[in-house]
Amino acid sequence: MRHDVNYTMLADFYELTMGNGYFQTGLKDRVCYFDVFFRNVPDGGGFAIAAGLEQVIQYIQNLRFDQEDVEYLRSKGLFGEDFLQFLLDFRFTGDIWAVPEGTPIFPREPILIVRAPAIQAQFIETYLLLALNHQSLIATKSNRIVRAAEGRAVSEFGSRRAQGAEGALLGARASYIAGAGGTACAMADQMFHTPATGTMAHSWVQMFPDEYTAFRTYCQVYPEAPTLLVDTYSVLKSGVPNAIRAFREGGLTRGAIRIDSGDLAYLSRQARKMLDEAGLEGIKIIASNSLDEYLIRDLITQGARIDGFGVGERLITSKSEPVFGGVYKLAAIEDEQGRIIPKIKISENPAKVTLPHFKKVYRLFENATGKAMADYVCLYQEQPDFSQPLELFDPDATWKRKTVRDFTPVPLLCPIFQGGRLVYQQPSIQEIRAYCVRQVDSLWDEVKRFENPHNYYVDLSQALWDVRDQLLIPRR
Amino acid sequence: MRHDVNYTMLADFYELTMGNGYFQTGLKDRVCYFDVFFRNVPDGGGFAIAAGLEQVIQYIQNLRFDQEDVEYLRSKGLFGEDFLQFLLDFRFTGDIWAVPEGTPIFPREPILIVRAPAIQAQFIETYLLLALNHQSLIATKSNRIVRAAEGRAVSEFGSRRAQGAEGALLGARASYIAGAGGTACAMADQMFHTPATGTMAHSWVQMFPDEYTAFRTYCQVYPEAPTLLVDTYSVLKSGVPNAIRAFREGGLTRGAIRIDSGDLAYLSRQARKMLDEAGLEGIKIIASNSLDEYLIRDLITQGARIDGFGVGERLITSKSEPVFGGVYKLAAIEDEQGRIIPKIKISENPAKVTLPHFKKVYRLFENATGKAMADYVCLYQEQPDFSQPLELFDPDATWKRKTVRDFTPVPLLCPIFQGGRLVYQQPSIQEIRAYCVRQVDSLWDEVKRFENPHNYYVDLSQALWDVRDQLLIPRR
Repeated sequence: MRHDVNYTMLADFYELTMGNGYFQTGLKDRVCYFDVFFRNVPDGGGFAIAAGLEQVIQYIQNLRFDQEDVEYLRSKGLFGEDFLQFLLDFRFTGDIWAVPEGTPIFPREPILIVRAPAIQAQFIETYLLLALNHQSLIATKSNRIVRAAEGRAVSEFGSRRAQGAEGALLGARASYIAGAGGTACAMADQMFHTPATGTMAHSWVQMFPDEYTAFRTYCQVYPEAPTLLVDTYSVLKSGVPNAIRAFREGGLTRGAIRIDSGDLAYLSRQARKMLDEAGLEGIKIIASNSLDEYLIRDLITQGARIDGFGVGERLITSKSEPVFGGVYKLAAIEDEQGRIIPKIKISENPAKVTLPHFKKVYRLFENATGKAMADYVCLYQEQPDFSQPLELFDPDATWKRKTVRDFTPVPLLCPIFQGGRLVYQQPSIQEIRAYCVRQVDSLWDEVKRFENPHNYYVDLSQALWDVRDQLLIPRR
Repeated sequence: MRHDVNYTMLADFYELTMGNGYFQTGLKDRVCYFDVFFRNVPDGGGFAIAAGLEQVIQYIQNLRFDQEDVEYLRSKGLFGEDFLQFLLDFRFTGDIWAVPEGTPIFPREPILIVRAPAIQAQFIETYLLLALNHQSLIATKSNRIVRAAEGRAVSEFGSRRAQGAEGALLGARASYIAGAGGTACAMADQMFHTPATGTMAHSWVQMFPDEYTAFRTYCQVYPEAPTLLVDTYSVLKSGVPNAIRAFREGGLTRGAIRIDSGDLAYLSRQARKMLDEAGLEGIKIIASNSLDEYLIRDLITQGARIDGFGVGERLITSKSEPVFGGVYKLAAIEDEQGRIIPKIKISENPAKVTLPHFKKVYRLFENATGKAMADYVCLYQEQPDFSQPLELFDPDATWKRKTVRDFTPVPLLCPIFQGGRLVYQQPSIQEIRAYCVRQVDSLWDEVKRFENPHNYYVDLSQALWDVRDQLLIPRR
C-alpha cells in the first residue's frame, strides 16, 4: 500500500490569483478570520456529524509547493516572479480551531475557524471545504442509517459506487466514525482500522457446478462463521436449503446467510423460519440491496428478521442528498494596529447573512438530564457568566426568548493549530466513534427525528448580535 | 505535487476471501470472462459517456501487494500462508477489452471485458467498477450540461463540494472529456491538462475598503481579461456600476463579470444592457450558483444574456443522480480443455438477466448520414457478414424486427491488455475530448433528448440470443 499525496495544488485557481493579488498589493500579511459553517442539514435532518478534521490536519502539515508546482504556475503567465518565489517557502503559520470529529453540528455555527495571514487563510479554502464537506456528508448519512437499524449491525459496502478512490476510503472512515460497524473495503481497514469483512459474490456460486458445492466448499475453507450468499438462483427454493445443508453437513452453528435481492421482509422471515426449523438458530441473516435509512426502517416495521445490513451506494454517495454545503466565509480582518474589524456578507436571504467577528461556541448541557439544550455563539473575547441564568433568543426572531439555568457549558471548538504548530492530539478512530455515540445520545429525540425534527437552538450572545446588527444597519 | 498511490488494496474484502478460496480449491487458474455493463442511464437520458479507462490502465499496471499488505492480510487469520506468498508475486496476466473513453454507451452492452485466471479476474472487480462508474457518471452529466448550454462555455467549479480529492480531480477530468471547457481546480489542470481558470471570491471584495477599490486593484494586477465578481453587495446597484468604472478607468475592453446569486436571467439581461451602454460590448457575463442542465436550459429559454456557466456541486457529484450503476458479472468460464462454458445470472426481473458468453460489440453507422443506427452484440468467435442486409431484433421482444443495410460496422471494444501487457495507445485528453464530440454528433437528436429519449437499439446476434435462450430454458 502506498498512499503519499500532497494536496497543496488541490485548490481553486482563484485562491492563487487572489493570493498573488494580495501579495502584489501589500495585503498578504493582513490577518484574516474565516469561518467554516453550513446552512442546511442534509435530508431535512435535525443535525449533522462533523468529520474530516484528520485530513485537514494532514493537509496543513503537508502544505508546500514543489518546484514543479511553481513551474506549472509560471507557465500560466499570470503570477509575479516574487510571488512564485514566495510560494516555495509557503507554510501555514496561523491558528485553527475546530469541533472534534464525531460532534453533532448545527446550521450557521462555526465548525472551524482560521486565523492567518490573508494569503494563507484564503489559499486553504478549497481543500478544507472539500475534506469537511465530504466526510461530514457521509458521517451524517451513516448516523441516520445506523439509528434506523436500531442496534442491528450496519456495514458499509459501497466502494464500487463511490465517487473516486477517496470517496471509498474516506467514506468508509466517515461511516465508521458515525456508527457503521465496518466496511467491505480492505484498504480502508488497513489505513483507518475500520474493520473489514467480506464473504462471497454471485460469481463464487457460479464458478462451481452447483450452488450446494459452492456453499460446501466455502464452509470448508472458512469454517469460522461463513456468510453464504443465497440469492443467485432462488432464495427459498435453492439458496436457503443449500445453505442449511452446507451448514449442517459441516457441523457449523455460527455463520450467516446474505439476501441481496427480492422482498427482503418476506424472504428474511421465511428464511428465519427455515433456519430455525433446521436447528440453526445461531445462523444470522444479513440483507443488502440499495438500502438506506428509510428502507431499513420500513423493513423493521414489517417484521423483517434481519440481523445486519450491508449498505452500499446510498451510503457511500449519500445518494438522496450527495452534497454537504459547508462554506468558508470571511468573518473579520485585523487592521494594521491588530484591531479586529468584523466583516459581514449581506444577502437578500436572511439565512445567508454571515455571522461577523472572531467567535467561539459553547454547547450547554442540562445538568439534570445531561442533554444538550442549545449552542451559544459569542465573541471570542467575551467571558460569559454562566453561573447566572442565561437568556437565549432566536437571532432571527428576537422576541422568542427562553431563560436556561443549571447547565454546564462546554466549549465546542478546540485549538488545532497555533502559530502553525499542531497542538491537537488527534483521538484514535475508535475514540472518535465512541465520542460520537455519546454526543448523539446527548441530543433529545425530537432533534433526532427523520421528519420535521425540532430546531435545535443556536443562539447568539447579545454582544455578537449587536455587532451583526450594526453591520446590517447601513444597508437596511 | 506528489500523487503516487497504489490502489491494489482498494478491493472489497470478499475479493480476497474468494481469491483464497479459489486458490485453496484448485480454481485459481480457471480462465474466466467478466463483463462490465450498466442497466440504466442516469437522469433518464438516452446514453452515457464512458470514462475512467486511463485509471483502470494505471491500476492494472501498478497491481502488486507489498509486504505490508500481506502482513495486514495475515493478521486477519483467514488466509492460507501459500496464498499470501502467492500474492507477493501477483500480477495481472490476462486480457482486457474496453470501449475508448468518450464513447457514448448504452445499457446492457459490455463496455469492458476481462479474460483472466479466476483470482485475477475476480480481484480487480472493485477498483474497475469504482473507476468506470465514477468517471462515466460525471462525464455523462457533463455532456448533458454542455449540450444544454448550446455552445456557451461551461466550466467545472465543484472541487469544494466533491466527494474526496479524487472526486474533484478525476471529476474535473471526466467533465472535460465530455465537453466542459475547463475547471477551477489547479491540480486537475496540472495532472490532466484540463485548463484551469479562476478569478475572485467574495472575500477578495471584502478585503478592500470598498467594492470599487477591490475591482480596480484586481484590474491592475490582471489587466488581461479579468473577471469581476459583482454580487457581493448588490449586482445592479453597486457591482455592475463599479465593474464598469474599473474596466473603463483601466481602459480594459476584454474581461467578464460573474453573477453568483439572484435571478440570473433578469440580472444578466440588465447587466448586459448596462455594459453595452457603457461601450463595454467586449465584457462577457459569467453565471454560477447551483446550476445544472435544466436550469441552464431554462435560463437560455428566458433570454438570459450569459456567455458562460460555472457549474459546481451539481456537476461534480452528479447531484440529481449520484450513482452510475455499472456491474461486473461472470459471463463464461473455460473448462480444463479450454472450452468456453457460458454463464448466466438469472433474475426475476428480465432486465437483470445477464448476457452470457465471450462477446464483442459493433456499432453500425448508416453510410448515408454517418449516424449510429444500432449496436450489435455477438459471440466473439462470430464473423458476421455485414456485406448483406442485417436483420436486427429486440432481444426482449423478438417479434420487433428491422432490416438495416448500407452501414459501416465499427468494433466498439478495443484490446487494452493482452497477456498482461498493455497494447493500447492511450489518446491524449484533447484527443479523447474531440472524439467524444464526434461520437455524440453521430447520435440522432431523438437519442439526445433529456426527456423520454428514443431507445437506441442494442441488439443481439441470433447465435448469442440462442446461447442465452438455452441457458434460460431449464429455469422456465
